[in-house]
Parts: sequence; C-alpha cells; structure tokens
Amino acid sequence: MNQASADCPLCRDAGGVLVMQMPKWRVIRSLDDANFPAFYRLIWQAHVAEFSDLSSEDRATCMDAVVRIEQTLREALQPAKINLATLGNVVPHLHWHVIARFDWDSHFPNPVWGASRREVSGGAEARLPLALTDLDRRVALALA
Amino acid sequence: MNQASADCPLCRDAGGVLVMQMPKWRVIRSLDDANFPAFYRLIWQAHVAEFSDLSSEDRATCMDAVVRIEQTLREALQPAKINLATLGNVVPHLHWHVIARFDWDSHFPNPVWGASRREVSGGAEARLPLALTDLDRRVALALA
Repeated sequence: MNQASADCPLCRDAGGVLVMQMPKWRVIRSLDDANFPAFYRLIWQAHVAEFSDLSSEDRATCMDAVVRIEQTLREALQPAKINLATLGNVVPHLHWHVIARFDWDSHFPNPVWGASRREVSGGAEARLPLALTDLDRRVALALA
Repeated sequence: MNQASADCPLCRDAGGVLVMQMPKWRVIRSLDDANFPAFYRLIWQAHVAEFSDLSSEDRATCMDAVVRIEQTLREALQPAKINLATLGNVVPHLHWHVIARFDWDSHFPNPVWGASRREVSGGAEARLPLALTDLDRRVALALA
C-alpha cells in the first residue's frame, strides 16, 4: 500500500498548515483544536499504515524529524511536557502527533484525547510566548 | 535528572508484568486496563522525561525495541491498528505505550484515553488468539 489512496484524507490534502515538505515526509501544524495550538504532525508521504511498515532507514529519518520538532517546541515554548503519538485508528496513514502540553491547557495532565479539565480563558494561542507563524518558522528551520 | 527519583513510580516499581529487561530499558505488560490486554510499555531505565533527552544512539535503541514489540503484536494478533505513544503528563519518566487495537475493542476507533464506544462481552483477553503469557514470551524472544 505505497500508492496514494483516493479515500485517504492525508493522501488528498496537506492536513493543516504546511510547515515543511520533503520527499518522504511533510510537517503540518494542525488546525483541528484551538485548545492545542502548538500541535504539529509529521505525515509520511507514502500511504503506509504502521511505523513498522517503514524500513529501518526510513524510521530513523522519521524519528529524527519528530525529535527536531520536539526540540524546537521545548526551546521555544518550555512546555510542561511533549506528547508524541502515532495512532491512526481513523486515518490509517502514518502520521506522528507532536504536541506541546502546558499545565494550564484544557486537558492537562490528561491526554488531549481524554476528558477536559478546565476552560482556558482568553484562548490557548494567546498564552504562547510567540506567534504561531513564528513558531512554524522555527520548526521549519530546525527541519531544514 | 538521570538519577532514580524517589517520587517516581517507574523508578520504584517494574510498572507491570516484567517481560524483558536490558541495561537501558525494560518492557512490561500493563495490568492497568482489562479492556486493553495487549498493552505493553517500554520503560527507559534512567529517569528522563522527554524522548529528546536521549542521545541519538539511545533513541535508535529505544525505537528499535518499540518496533520489535509492534511487529510481534502485528504477527501474533493481527490487530486493526497499533498505537504508539509517549505522553508522560502524569509520570514524566520516559515510557512508550505499544498497544494493539481491534475493531471490537471498547474504544475503537477512539484512542484508549478517549471515550468508550462499547462493552466487550466476555472480556477482551478472551478474544485474543493466544494467551497473554504466550504473547509475553513472543515479545521477549523478539527483544532478545
């Protein structure tokens, strides 16, 4: 299943704000949830379902990029925690979530997929120490 | 923070059924949730919080072991999906969740941390094609 799949949203569309694109992967910033504005995804370009479908070399390439995103978020945002996950139960096209978590965010310490714990007054994006476009630029630089 | 932390449950206890132990990591089967019996964790032995706290070499070692668990679960169980995640919001000691998911499981396609979708009559463990102790043995062999 390395061909693009017509039914797959990640084969069809970027999946969010395109931050960086390489032949084997792209990084987007997710626009799915205003509660988690510093939410990036590394999307493997080929339509494969599982991390272990990649060759050892491609897995290293993939995780190297994931770690560069993580490091950039840590340096720029000093979050309480970074969350990494590849689930794909709904969209089985390999993608890694890289999410900066804060003790003030709506769900912390629950997973972003768990129960909400609080409302964030004024919006989560306003709490970040820099604008998302600047954060995107830093992530892109780290991936270059 | 490479020293064991007295407050950290993963420094203090195995964290589940010990499947395999190496100097840098151990693999346990989680006993936390009867809904997800094929739920393994790779726990980094040193008390570090983030994946990017590891050296490049240690990250490769870590993900190689994660992938061996994933491959074993895929071969033995033919799950609908594998979920990988390192969150650590509650216990910030690096550990990777490796979870076999099935279309009949209580939460599928939601994340295991999300809302339940159904009850699994007769228990999830009974639906697996092999006993958990046999699965543990296969995982240990793949990691040896």
